[in-house]
Amino acid sequence: MISINWKPNKNSSIPLYKQIVDYIKEKIATGEWSISSKLPAQRELAERFEVNRSTVVEALDELKAEGLIEGKSGGGTIIVNNTWSLLASTPPPNWQSYISSGIHKPNLSIIQAINKFEYKENMIRLGTGELSPELFPKEMMKVVLDSVGDKIESLGYEEPKGSLYLRQIISQYLKKYEINASPDSILIVSGSLQALQLISLGILHPGSAVLSEKPSYIKSLHVFQSAGMRVKGIPMDDQGIRISEIMNNLNKATTLLYTIPTFHNPTGIVMPQHKRNELLEVCEKARLPIIEDDAYRDLWLDTEPPLPLKAKDKNGSVLYMGTISKSLAAGIRIGWLIGPEPVIERLGDIKMQTDYGSSSLSQWALAEWISSGLYEKYLEELREKLRVRRQVALNALEKYFSDIATWNKPSGGFYIWLKLKKQISMEKLFYLCCDNGILINPGNVYDFSENLNLRISYSYSSLYDLENGLKKLSQIIRLLN
Amino acid sequence: MISINWKPNKNSSIPLYKQIVDYIKEKIATGEWSISSKLPAQRELAERFEVNRSTVVEALDELKAEGLIEGKSGGGTIIVNNTWSLLASTPPPNWQSYISSGIHKPNLSIIQAINKFEYKENMIRLGTGELSPELFPKEMMKVVLDSVGDKIESLGYEEPKGSLYLRQIISQYLKKYEINASPDSILIVSGSLQALQLISLGILHPGSAVLSEKPSYIKSLHVFQSAGMRVKGIPMDDQGIRISEIMNNLNKATTLLYTIPTFHNPTGIVMPQHKRNELLEVCEKARLPIIEDDAYRDLWLDTEPPLPLKAKDKNGSVLYMGTISKSLAAGIRIGWLIGPEPVIERLGDIKMQTDYGSSSLSQWALAEWISSGLYEKYLEELREKLRVRRQVALNALEKYFSDIATWNKPSGGFYIWLKLKKQISMEKLFYLCCDNGILINPGNVYDFSENLNLRISYSYSSLYDLENGLKKLSQIIRLLN
Ligand SMILES: Cc1ncc(COP(=O)(O)O)c(C=O)c1O
Ligand SMILES: Cc1ncc(COP(=O)(O)O)c(C=O)c1O
Repeated sequence: MISINWKPNKNSSIPLYKQIVDYIKEKIATGEWSISSKLPAQRELAERFEVNRSTVVEALDELKAEGLIEGKSGGGTIIVNNTWSLLASTPPPNWQSYISSGIHKPNLSIIQAINKFEYKENMIRLGTGELSPELFPKEMMKVVLDSVGDKIESLGYEEPKGSLYLRQIISQYLKKYEINASPDSILIVSGSLQALQLISLGILHPGSAVLSEKPSYIKSLHVFQSAGMRVKGIPMDDQGIRISEIMNNLNKATTLLYTIPTFHNPTGIVMPQHKRNELLEVCEKARLPIIEDDAYRDLWLDTEPPLPLKAKDKNGSVLYMGTISKSLAAGIRIGWLIGPEPVIERLGDIKMQTDYGSSSLSQWALAEWISSGLYEKYLEELREKLRVRRQVALNALEKYFSDIATWNKPSGGFYIWLKLKKQISMEKLFYLCCDNGILINPGNVYDFSENLNLRISYSYSSLYDLENGLKKLSQIIRLLN
Repeated sequence: MISINWKPNKNSSIPLYKQIVDYIKEKIATGEWSISSKLPAQRELAERFEVNRSTVVEALDELKAEGLIEGKSGGGTIIVNNTWSLLASTPPPNWQSYISSGIHKPNLSIIQAINKFEYKENMIRLGTGELSPELFPKEMMKVVLDSVGDKIESLGYEEPKGSLYLRQIISQYLKKYEINASPDSILIVSGSLQALQLISLGILHPGSAVLSEKPSYIKSLHVFQSAGMRVKGIPMDDQGIRISEIMNNLNKATTLLYTIPTFHNPTGIVMPQHKRNELLEVCEKARLPIIEDDAYRDLWLDTEPPLPLKAKDKNGSVLYMGTISKSLAAGIRIGWLIGPEPVIERLGDIKMQTDYGSSSLSQWALAEWISSGLYEKYLEELREKLRVRRQVALNALEKYFSDIATWNKPSGGFYIWLKLKKQISMEKLFYLCCDNGILINPGNVYDFSENLNLRISYSYSSLYDLENGLKKLSQIIRLLN
């Protein structure tokens, strides 16, 4: 039988319902309240705890959501001996901060909302950084899978660095960008995010600081933060990250620079060649290693971008990350990491300890895409379509935003970085847009400080939705003040 | 210019060459010795450090291997400003133990040797826990890839728990084993190893202890150890883990039980139904959550094994892991984790933060394998072939080992757990076998304490190699004493 001789502390800063949740959890965890026992009725609980019934309901809802108790169809609530849920309700330190950050940081709650609304139908997604399903090369993929089916003789575990065949093909492909990388210095990863995860687990120390552009895609991730690192934003100008500001921000804790010099996410900025040389030189002098994230390189629309930093890196200062996610298909989950061999070997060992290697099927498919020449052919067609999309977006902006915002004209990638002229609440804007069937990516997803930016992506929505969505968006903005 | 006014401490327990390595690394890290500067000749270094020239060579070799210095073709050695290698040379705490464990634990050096020799040609692999490439269903895979090519409309990022389509199919498939799992309580993972990784990162606390069978596959991994947990082995009898011993080993640090009740790796043991019921009951009472690793279930050879623990788990005590690695192809890298929804959701969130989901291509392929019925059809053929392989192995054992070893007759899975009667050095045996073109998996890979066991697998080698390899192995054993 369950007896209660306790009440929450009304003077505590911990909300009453939360105190009740913790109290009940402890009772279950210690086994004092045993499996299948029935909780007193809500009214009775409210009396014992000396709180409002709504507080009891809130506490029970949370316990239900965590799977610790269950409402019975006949009425009443029983305890479920959910040992795993109990474990999960007190996460280890690393993830505690990750999970609770949802409560504190406004941008994370917006990221969660974005993730949720992405699965809602009929939402116009104006910020999604992915190729539209319309752009998927279905017929070519069929051809590729067909050849792959002919070539695969078996599908066992791969070598730690990934399929040698694919590494040879990537090694060859990178020559185009004047990157000389032997297959031994290439690690196949399950997307660039995994590469970042491996670096943060295997090389970086908790407490160290990572510099990045401000704003940056990396701010929307928790990969460094979860591993106990801080990400420090360095201001940009229209040629990318400000090199002098890097120097001003160096201190003992600074471990590396993460940068997206080509079609930067979210601003679309491309760092010119002379500045790349300077950046490389400065970082080499300062012994500041660089992660170059080159996810968007193949998506140039006007002219080919300057060579990667890695092309001029003679001393192993640059870890270079590529991925097929943006230019072909995120669901293939294949990326590559290029760097000094001992580093690649270490990270490959760690990868083996975490997932035994990336999907061989995906590796075969990518190898076939590149080696068959279909990837290049597809890219040409894709660029053509993206140019049209970019133009539609720019026209709509011209038409509906010229008095209320400023923006850049990107020369590649997916993004237009729109800056509103009027001071409005971006959170209000976000939710008002949601109510009106439009999903936007507000600037504070990429930069923890508040700002008046939106990331507009012309890669995802249909042309009709793009034009229409931007029109509606401008109307909503005009409503707010 | 490089000047040296230091010498290693001859009374230190740190080897001289290692002290020199650390000294030079520090000089490079602090920038005192600058990029491209030339190191003094070996002879001169030996004089300055007051050590033998061979010690200098050893130190330089290590620095070269780490990419910090480079031999010039014209002679001499120069410093390369390899910032990444420098970072990698002082790994963060977690991985430090992982990396250095290779030095201390004999079994890890054997695992490394196994990994290396697996890529050597013409090795007879008597212990490899994988299906032979001969057994790969090439034609069926072609059919599957063909259908997949027709079905895929696009390949974007997946939902956190993985493709809903695949989860529905797995939910349906598991009904066969009387597991009732809604698609919402299923997490698609990139193999079971990743599931273990997610559990160790997201739920377990450093310092906690995991119980497992002794010996166990889990001992050959570092997934729990790298996250700061201890794995404690519980003795088995011929019906699996000893339940009374579980109870004797429970203490405050004990967090969960990891078990392979069906075709256990490496012993092949199957836990009978009555003992499963008892185990579940005991663990529920003790509030000890269970990870049930069911990798080999589909590989029964005589009769279907008892139902999974999960089938009788009414209270969410069991996290159930399945994988396609053993029964079809490890390179697909897809597994599934079944558990209480809040746990699955948490782990799915963490997965998204680490790799954004598993390969969609692999998920599609697996969905097609199962839903088309080809998987079942293939399994029947596979079982037939594995029965033959098992028989060939057992015959060879009978012929060559009856006086020198004992073993079990497995009713499914891949493994025979051979126990030598004669006390010999397993390490000697391992390397002698390698010299003779035979790769074996000694028992201490699965159990840190020394023992006289070998894991024989009849899944990998050709029938000829199996018979021949076992014959040679018995001859080598007879040579040793
Ligand atoms: C700059 C950048 N890098 C990497 C990624 C993610 O790549 P992947 O799918 O390879 O993990 C993205 C996705 O938005 C990105 O914008
Ligand atoms: C018991 C057991 N579980 C899991 C695995 C690995 O599975 P996966 O390839 O799904 O990570 C193995 C592989 O040997 C195994 O023996």
